[in-house]
Amino acid sequence: MIEIIPNLRHDINKPLYIQIYEYFKEEILNRKITAGTRLPSHRKLAEHLQVSRNTIELAYQQLLTEGYAESKPKKGLYAADVSYDVMKRKQESFCITAKQKIPAISYDFSQGHVDASVFPLTIWKRITTDCLYTNEERWFTAEDPQGEPELRSELCQYLYHSRGVVCSPDQIVFGAGTQYLLWLLIQLIGTDDEYAMENPGFHRVRAMLQSSSLSVSYIDLDEQGIHVASLQKTNAKTVYITPSHQFPYGMIMPLARRLELLQWANERNGYIIEDDYDGEFRYVGKPIPALQGLDTNERVIYFGTFSKAFLPSVRMSYMILPPALLKIYKERGTIYKQTVSKLHQLTMYHFMKDGHWHRHLSRIRTLYKKKQKALIAAIERYMGNHTEIIGSQSGLHIVLDVKNGMAEEQLIHTAAQYKVKVYPVSLYYADSSPFLSRILIGFGGLTEQEIEEAILLLNKAWFASEE
Amino acid sequence: MIEIIPNLRHDINKPLYIQIYEYFKEEILNRKITAGTRLPSHRKLAEHLQVSRNTIELAYQQLLTEGYAESKPKKGLYAADVSYDVMKRKQESFCITAKQKIPAISYDFSQGHVDASVFPLTIWKRITTDCLYTNEERWFTAEDPQGEPELRSELCQYLYHSRGVVCSPDQIVFGAGTQYLLWLLIQLIGTDDEYAMENPGFHRVRAMLQSSSLSVSYIDLDEQGIHVASLQKTNAKTVYITPSHQFPYGMIMPLARRLELLQWANERNGYIIEDDYDGEFRYVGKPIPALQGLDTNERVIYFGTFSKAFLPSVRMSYMILPPALLKIYKERGTIYKQTVSKLHQLTMYHFMKDGHWHRHLSRIRTLYKKKQKALIAAIERYMGNHTEIIGSQSGLHIVLDVKNGMAEEQLIHTAAQYKVKVYPVSLYYADSSPFLSRILIGFGGLTEQEIEEAILLLNKAWFASEE
Repeated sequence: MIEIIPNLRHDINKPLYIQIYEYFKEEILNRKITAGTRLPSHRKLAEHLQVSRNTIELAYQQLLTEGYAESKPKKGLYAADVSYDVMKRKQESFCITAKQKIPAISYDFSQGHVDASVFPLTIWKRITTDCLYTNEERWFTAEDPQGEPELRSELCQYLYHSRGVVCSPDQIVFGAGTQYLLWLLIQLIGTDDEYAMENPGFHRVRAMLQSSSLSVSYIDLDEQGIHVASLQKTNAKTVYITPSHQFPYGMIMPLARRLELLQWANERNGYIIEDDYDGEFRYVGKPIPALQGLDTNERVIYFGTFSKAFLPSVRMSYMILPPALLKIYKERGTIYKQTVSKLHQLTMYHFMKDGHWHRHLSRIRTLYKKKQKALIAAIERYMGNHTEIIGSQSGLHIVLDVKNGMAEEQLIHTAAQYKVKVYPVSLYYADSSPFLSRILIGFGGLTEQEIEEAILLLNKAWFASEE
Repeated sequence: MIEIIPNLRHDINKPLYIQIYEYFKEEILNRKITAGTRLPSHRKLAEHLQVSRNTIELAYQQLLTEGYAESKPKKGLYAADVSYDVMKRKQESFCITAKQKIPAISYDFSQGHVDASVFPLTIWKRITTDCLYTNEERWFTAEDPQGEPELRSELCQYLYHSRGVVCSPDQIVFGAGTQYLLWLLIQLIGTDDEYAMENPGFHRVRAMLQSSSLSVSYIDLDEQGIHVASLQKTNAKTVYITPSHQFPYGMIMPLARRLELLQWANERNGYIIEDDYDGEFRYVGKPIPALQGLDTNERVIYFGTFSKAFLPSVRMSYMILPPALLKIYKERGTIYKQTVSKLHQLTMYHFMKDGHWHRHLSRIRTLYKKKQKALIAAIERYMGNHTEIIGSQSGLHIVLDVKNGMAEEQLIHTAAQYKVKVYPVSLYYADSSPFLSRILIGFGGLTEQEIEEAILLLNKAWFASEE
C-alpha cells in the first residue's frame, strides 16, 4: 500500500475530503503515484487518516469524475495515466487590475460623445427604479426574443409619427447595437448573394460585412449620396446606406435618388438596409422622412438606435424587418435570443409613453443646433478662408477640409499638440488610406464655449505661421 | 402661374411652412404639378397666401432637400421628376399591439427557467439603484469595449478561485450572450480553417457556426464526451465543447479526455472553445475545474455566462481570450463595441465584491440539488422501471429515456395533453431528426412539489394503460 501522509488540517476552512482529493491529485500529477497503482481501500484509508469512510468516498468520487483515478469493478481504484506533456503546471498569474489610459486632451471632438447636461437623468433614474421595483416576476420569466411587446408598440407609433416609418410592432427586432443586428440580418438574407455599401461609410458596418465571408462592393458617393449607376454595375442584391445623414459626409439623399434606389431594389429583388442612425437631428426645416416610408414593395430594412439621442451606455438598437425576412426570422424560432437588458427596455417604454422621449428629443435638437451654429461660426471666424465645412445640414458632426497643405495624420497630430482631439475620415474608406486633408469634428460632447476655445486652438495648430 | 389653393389652417398645431410643404409635395407626387413646372416665386406665394416670405423659404427648403423640387440658378424652383412606379402610396398600416401567447401549460420543464424565490432581489435592486445614483458621469462617457475594468478584475478572481481559470482581467471580453461572443471570436480566429463541435450540442451554437459560412464537422459523443479520435479524422482546427456538463447529455469529461483534447489542439495549432455554461452546478463532490486551467499552451478560449446562475434578463456573458487572439482583438481597436449595459456591469461588480454572488451561488447550488433529488426520486418512484435517467451529476436538467415505445414527438404531445411541457433532445442533433425516445427535463423553475405533481402526470400520460 502507498504510504499516505497527507497533512490534513482541521484549522483551515477547507473540507477534509477536498484536502484528500487534492493530495492524491498532486501525487498522481507529479507521478509520485504512478499510473496503474492501486489506491488504498476506503476502509483502510479512513482508518489510517482517522476520518469517516464517507469523507474518503467523496474524495475518491472527485478523483474518479475528474479522471485522476479509474475504477476496476470489484478490484478498487487505480491511479490513471495523466503523463501528457501539456500537463506542465502553469504558473499562477496574478490578477492585475486593468488600467484605463488618460490621454492629455482638453477638448475632444469625438462624434460619439453626447451632451450629458440636458439628459433628464433624474427622470430616467426614477423610471428605472420604478421598473425595477414593479416588475419583479419579469426578471425571471422568458424574454420576448424580439424585445418586450409594449416597447415595440410604443416605438412603432413614434417611428410612424416622427420618421414616417410604416410598420407593425411585430416587425421590430431589438438588439444590442447595429453590429449585432446586422449580423442577425445577414443570417436572414443569406450569404450567397453579394452586398454593397457606401464608400466612405461606417467602418463598423464594413468590418461586419467583411468578416461575414461576404462578397462586398464599395460604391462611391456623389453629392446626393450613393451612386446608383455604379451600384447597378455590381452584382449586389443588398446595399447598406445612410440616407438621412450620410456617414461621414453628411449629405441628405434627395427624393429622386431614393426612388432610384427603390427601383434598383425592386428590379434586383434585393434589399436596402437604411441606417437612420441620427435621423432625429436636422437643423434646417423638419427631419427628412425615412426611405422605409416610401417603399411599397417591402425591400427596405430600417435600422435605428437609441445610442445617439439617448444614453450610449444603454446599448439599445432596433431593426424593422419586411414581411419576407420576418417570416424567415420566425421560422428559426428561438435560435436568436434577445440581447438588450429587459430593465432598460421597460424603462424606455415608460420613458416614451410618458412623453419624456419626445420632450428630450426637442430639447437636444435645439441644443445641438446651437452647438453646431457655434462651431460653424467659430470656424468661419478663425479660419474661414482656409477651410471648407462639409455636411452641416444635420447630425452631430461635420467634416472639415483644411487647406494648409497638411494631410489627415498631420492635422490630427498637430491638433493633439494643442490638446485638441480631432478624428480621421480615412478610417471610413474601404480603400487603403486615400490622401485626405480632412478631419471629422463631433460637437455633441462640448459646450459652446469649449467649441470656441477648441477652434481657436486648432487655428493656432494649423495656421500658426500665418498669424 | 400654378393656381395655389393650399388650405392653410391656423387652428391646428402644425407650422404653416409644413402645411405648405406638404401641399406641394402631394401635388407633385400626384402629378397635379408636373415635372419641370416652375413653382411661384417666394414673393408672389407669400403675398398670395398672406404669410411671411420666411415661411415660404422654409417650405421650399424642405422641398429642395427632399428632392421634390429642383433649383435652377437665377431662375427659381421647379417641380422634380418623381414619377416612378414605386411611388404608389403605401396604405397606412395601423400600429397593433403585439400579443403574447399564453399556452395552457401547468408545469413547464424548461431548462432555461431559474428559481426566482431564492434570488436576492432586494439586494440586487438596492445595488442597481445605488449604482444608478452614484455613477452619473459614467452613463455618458465612453465604454470600455471589453467591459468595465472593475468587473473584469472581480470576475478574474472569482474564476480563479471557483473554476480554476487562470487569466488576467485584460483577457476578459464581456458580451450580450454566447452567440454574440462566438460571432466575435470567429472574427478573431478567422473563417478559413474548419470548425468542429459536439453532436448533439447547443443548437444556438450550431446555428451560429452554420450561418458564418464555416465548414463545420459534427463529432459524436461517447460516455466521456466528444470523441477525440473522430475529431482527429477531420481537418478542424477549432472545436466547441461543454466539458463540465455536456449539453444536453450531461456527462463530465474526465481528465484523460481533457488532456487528449489539449494534445490535439497543440498538434493542430488549433483552439478549444470551452463553454462552461453551468459549471457552477455540480451535486456530487466539488465543481470540476475548467479545462482552461489545465492548458499551458494558450489554446483554450473559456466561455461563461451569468444567465444560468444569475438573472437571464440581464444578458451578461463573457469569454477569456488567450494572448494570441487578444492581440488580434486589440489590433482591431474600436471596431467592436460593448453590448452589455453599463448599469448591469457595475451592479454585478458590487454584487460580487460584497460577497452576494458567492452567497447566492451556494444557496442555489443547495436548492437545485434538492430539486434534482426530488425529480430523480419522483421518476424512480412513479416510472423507474420504464425510464432511464441520463446526466444527473450536475446542471439544471436531465435527459429522460422513456421506454414505452413512443418517439420524442409523441412523448411531448401526450405530456402536453396533461399540461406538462417537456422538451425535445433531437433539436440538438446536427443530423436530421434521429429516432429518439428521449426528452429533456429542466427543473430550475419548478418547486419540489410541482416536480412531484408533474412527474405523476407524466406517468399518466406515458404509462396510463399499465395502471
